[in-house]
Amino acid sequence: MIIILRPSATEENIRHITEKIAEWGLKSEVSRGEQRTVIGIIGPEDRVREKPLAAFPGVESVTPVLKPYKLVSYEFRGTPSKVSVPVKNGKVEFGGKPIIVISGPCSVESREQIIQIAKQVKKAGAHMLRGGAFKPRTSPYTFQGLGEEGLKLLAEAREATGLPVITEVMDTKDLSVIEKYADMLQVGARNMQNFALLKEVGRSRLPVMLKRGMSATIKDLLLSAEYILNEGNFNVILCERGIRTFETYTRNTLDLNAIPVLKRETHLPVVVDPTHGIGLKDHIPVMALAAVAAGADAIMVETHHLPENALSDGEQALLPEEFELLMKRMRAVAEAVGRSI
Amino acid sequence: MIIILRPSATEENIRHITEKIAEWGLKSEVSRGEQRTVIGIIGPEDRVREKPLAAFPGVESVTPVLKPYKLVSYEFRGTPSKVSVPVKNGKVEFGGKPIIVISGPCSVESREQIIQIAKQVKKAGAHMLRGGAFKPRTSPYTFQGLGEEGLKLLAEAREATGLPVITEVMDTKDLSVIEKYADMLQVGARNMQNFALLKEVGRSRLPVMLKRGMSATIKDLLLSAEYILNEGNFNVILCERGIRTFETYTRNTLDLNAIPVLKRETHLPVVVDPTHGIGLKDHIPVMALAAVAAGADAIMVETHHLPENALSDGEQALLPEEFELLMKRMRAVAEAVGRSI
Amino acid sequence: MIIILRPSATEENIRHITEKIAEWGLKSEVSRGEQRTVIGIIGPEDRVREKPLAAFPGVESVTPVLKPYKLVSYEFRGTPSKVSVPVKNGKVEFGGKPIIVISGPCSVESREQIIQIAKQVKKAGAHMLRGGAFKPRTSPYTFQGLGEEGLKLLAEAREATGLPVITEVMDTKDLSVIEKYADMLQVGARNMQNFALLKEVGRSRLPVMLKRGMSATIKDLLLSAEYILNEGNFNVILCERGIRTFETYTRNTLDLNAIPVLKRETHLPVVVDPTHGIGLKDHIPVMALAAVAAGADAIMVETHHLPENALSDGEQALLPEEFELLMKRMRAVAEAVGRSI
Amino acid sequence: MIIILRPSATEENIRHITEKIAEWGLKSEVSRGEQRTVIGIIGPEDRVREKPLAAFPGVESVTPVLKPYKLVSYEFRGTPSKVSVPVKNGKVEFGGKPIIVISGPCSVESREQIIQIAKQVKKAGAHMLRGGAFKPRTSPYTFQGLGEEGLKLLAEAREATGLPVITEVMDTKDLSVIEKYADMLQVGARNMQNFALLKEVGRSRLPVMLKRGMSATIKDLLLSAEYILNEGNFNVILCERGIRTFETYTRNTLDLNAIPVLKRETHLPVVVDPTHGIGLKDHIPVMALAAVAAGADAIMVETHHLPENALSDGEQALLPEEFELLMKRMRAVAEAVGRSI
Repeated sequence: MIIILRPSATEENIRHITEKIAEWGLKSEVSRGEQRTVIGIIGPEDRVREKPLAAFPGVESVTPVLKPYKLVSYEFRGTPSKVSVPVKNGKVEFGGKPIIVISGPCSVESREQIIQIAKQVKKAGAHMLRGGAFKPRTSPYTFQGLGEEGLKLLAEAREATGLPVITEVMDTKDLSVIEKYADMLQVGARNMQNFALLKEVGRSRLPVMLKRGMSATIKDLLLSAEYILNEGNFNVILCERGIRTFETYTRNTLDLNAIPVLKRETHLPVVVDPTHGIGLKDHIPVMALAAVAAGADAIMVETHHLPENALSDGEQALLPEEFELLMKRMRAVAEAVGRSI
Repeated sequence: MIIILRPSATEENIRHITEKIAEWGLKSEVSRGEQRTVIGIIGPEDRVREKPLAAFPGVESVTPVLKPYKLVSYEFRGTPSKVSVPVKNGKVEFGGKPIIVISGPCSVESREQIIQIAKQVKKAGAHMLRGGAFKPRTSPYTFQGLGEEGLKLLAEAREATGLPVITEVMDTKDLSVIEKYADMLQVGARNMQNFALLKEVGRSRLPVMLKRGMSATIKDLLLSAEYILNEGNFNVILCERGIRTFETYTRNTLDLNAIPVLKRETHLPVVVDPTHGIGLKDHIPVMALAAVAAGADAIMVETHHLPENALSDGEQALLPEEFELLMKRMRAVAEAVGRSI
Repeated sequence: MIIILRPSATEENIRHITEKIAEWGLKSEVSRGEQRTVIGIIGPEDRVREKPLAAFPGVESVTPVLKPYKLVSYEFRGTPSKVSVPVKNGKVEFGGKPIIVISGPCSVESREQIIQIAKQVKKAGAHMLRGGAFKPRTSPYTFQGLGEEGLKLLAEAREATGLPVITEVMDTKDLSVIEKYADMLQVGARNMQNFALLKEVGRSRLPVMLKRGMSATIKDLLLSAEYILNEGNFNVILCERGIRTFETYTRNTLDLNAIPVLKRETHLPVVVDPTHGIGLKDHIPVMALAAVAAGADAIMVETHHLPENALSDGEQALLPEEFELLMKRMRAVAEAVGRSI
Repeated sequence: MIIILRPSATEENIRHITEKIAEWGLKSEVSRGEQRTVIGIIGPEDRVREKPLAAFPGVESVTPVLKPYKLVSYEFRGTPSKVSVPVKNGKVEFGGKPIIVISGPCSVESREQIIQIAKQVKKAGAHMLRGGAFKPRTSPYTFQGLGEEGLKLLAEAREATGLPVITEVMDTKDLSVIEKYADMLQVGARNMQNFALLKEVGRSRLPVMLKRGMSATIKDLLLSAEYILNEGNFNVILCERGIRTFETYTRNTLDLNAIPVLKRETHLPVVVDPTHGIGLKDHIPVMALAAVAAGADAIMVETHHLPENALSDGEQALLPEEFELLMKRMRAVAEAVGRSI
């Protein structure tokens, strides 16, 4: 921790700070420059991270030396992690050379719907099926999901296609029922800092996809992931799905810059969701290609066979044939950057 | 709902749209301008709000005519609401001429701490005591609150001072225990779109303070409040506590613009939290004054008697004597704008 | 300057950095912590501010110790500055106990219009008249201002009322003509980083109001002001006029947090423009009151006697009687916070 | 134009609005719904675009039907435009199947520097040379560029390599001297709404690259381009170079979403500048690949042979060998998406 003092800081201010640091069991190193005095804290930074040094008299700013996250940091592993989802006769593995593609509808609506879409995305080459049973909706007057019934239909779709399924968990009290049916848990953007939920999924045996909140910095996202790993669950993948900016033409601003940054900062695999990221159906495929070029380990896009009748987000679902075409285009880009699909 | 078509929209596109609208049980009115065709939908807009019209061929944009929220809208009541918190021999009432002041520490840390601070803020004129027992912390390595023990201490502080208490509920599973001790529930910024939690507090008998999420628009905030009212709990106050912007000098950007906008859009009272809003101790008082001038119905500020030893947010806590001075200054501004404290 | 190294930084990396620092004529101090090495640079920071240290092998981050601005910094003066605009028999002075109020239309439209409005705002108690002759408009198809003719009309309005006038300069080539008529120059938000223009107004004998750009941090604003002072013109006032955020209900987000921050960081007076800041006529007065409570040295609001016929920004102009009422309300708040109007 | 009224709007309000519309020479169509009244304006929307309808009594919101830009709109041409820069024995053409690559240093620093870098980027396959002579710098204390001397050196580098040159124009008074040396003009992000400058480059014979401002929406960018086309210069390319968001890990947030959106909205070619966009040297190449995959017509990246000695932005310059490698990688991605380099 490095403390930069104001030009007006007094010797009394400096003494007060160094005494407190000593009281907390650390050492300080005072550098008196011509214009500013700087105090370095020597010793385990964790012990002072939460101390209100910034409000001490004479202090202008406080800069940490260490990252606030540990288990998720790239250095903790020193190599990228792989996260596996077991399937009959094998596994789907995130973080290797092959790029994983997840597709399916926004919400599970009916047996006919989910099974048909599952078959179609399977045929096009998807590796995993998505579908919401518990839906986080901005308005209370919109479709809230089928709940456990939706989970059962997801499990049927898995039976019918062999695709493992991912679905969202919105609340700690729903976790045990979801664990009965799902192969992977999704924590949504709006719950990225629902810390009670993060701790619970951290105790689950299932892998977790953690979506970046709309106003979450990359640091915030990594700290939320740290909650999960800290409970013992290291099977976490991080999802970039668009941040909120001043631009209103697109639904969100898909932040592809986050891909290389996350690859540098953490060992966890990175998935990109261009569907919610840009939110404009016509432009989703091209953003998926860009995500592949930028180094994504997985792509998640929504597909619906009858988008005009969808109960949620129909305006951003690809048709199965559009998804199939996208698979081909993504494959070409993947190969151009040394990956495969 | 008003649908603006692209210049390239065909008659076939128009027919498709109007047929679908008829299928949904509404009527359409097609206006063919020189450059654009516009289709108005006549009938209950709710029925089409979730339809993916924006992705229909030929559509450029879709503009709703009605607001997506109802119960929270100003028009629903036609007059500002008052929200009461019962206290021995009376009540604390939000939304009247008197401005309510809530103060206390970020976290409940010990009996000695909470009772001492409660007495000091009571003496300075605060109407309500705040204190966190379940704490939403960005990092898993920081103080997570005392849990039920903290709630008991809060209740003791109420006994000692007569001040009603507000505390945060982070998860549905904690609600019943919190209801045993608290007088008002707080839903934090990070949980503003935790819809499972919103529904649960909507079924509580206790009044609720709903804090605006860091990237929540005013419309999002109102829709989240709508979840609570829709479950039957109309005792809701809305809290502006700073939004996330590009500016990094301040912790957040306290958005005082939200005050007059909320007063126009909703009948619910508005509280402002300058402590988290600007996050810089020295500047909190002046932002509190500005909030009073801008029409806030209540102000919430953190106070701590020993901020240098606080377990959380010590760098933004006022000292009791600073809080006392602020009360005087707020009172003067309140009177200047026709309110009282 | 403090350089924090990556955990993977090598001795070779450290040697390379310290050699370069020596080459630039400064000294380095290497602190090897258990987890990270930190290098402090001793000597005049200016010499290394532009060096690409952040991209040196092994470097994780670089933190400056000094502020990048000097002449505008509070410490440079150690006391708030006053900026004067001479008027017949006296002066208008920004930065003292009295709060200065500037009003007038968005654009000068005609002799009748500007003189009538000038008389009305004078009567209501305004101290200065605003009016645009060269207008920065987002679209080329909207009214671009009367140019020099508008300046002449402004000068006539000054004659008629005694109010000094402020008007915008958009381009270096217009400066000499504007200097013939204006009492104060305005550099608009869109030109806040038009550095050629900043240098030119820095050479003017007239005081300058510099408006904060829509996405300018407080640091950016201060650096732009530094350009003007660096050319010798110290008569600068800074204007907060709303920043761009994700919120779309309001035109911009008036950032009142900037007032106390600027008062701490710089000796220059601060003016607030709630008209552009919130952009919604009904809410402008209340934001003006909040700005006064937050410590603004001056308030600028647009007034028009016939807003429905205004050639620009009519939707955010107050009527003269509304402005008069606002003056009374601002006066009450000013007194409540120890100022006057 | 569609006017949505408040529920509280009176018949008197409606009459007032329709009378004003008639006065302006247009017709209105009043639709009285059960909950809201909507007024459509029939006739040339331009005539009412600037009218302050939003502030008329009883009005809740105003929605335009037409786009505010014309000449830049995709529909104006109905097909993508090509923009040519003549070179000896040919031309560099933006907007065709081949992707154009522009490279060079941030600033021209010396004859040796610019000629060496020009030769190296030429050898690696770049099509155009960039280099700043007039530099917009946030701080007045940093290198401001060599001015005309820099332009002469750029022209020498063109002689030496055959590469056409692009350089920034910061002020109207510099335009004539820059036109003597440059092949293409650049208007920087900070001047995107310097309307005086836009008009002047609109009268130039040279093609123009217009960079998106840090807080400019896509609509703002298109309106700024409209200024240039409106003066007669149709040779304009638009540059995405990163927007300002809350994320601080990256220098800016390169908004690749803007590429498909611009391709839909305008016929003008789109160039992407990942150097300023992400601002972190290590991550620039991968963002360049993503931009190619997302459909960019051109890529501009900074290269410097001795970045540690660069006078500006050295921390984000690629080495010539890194640039050469990037060319190969971009070529592979370009081919995967049906383009070439």
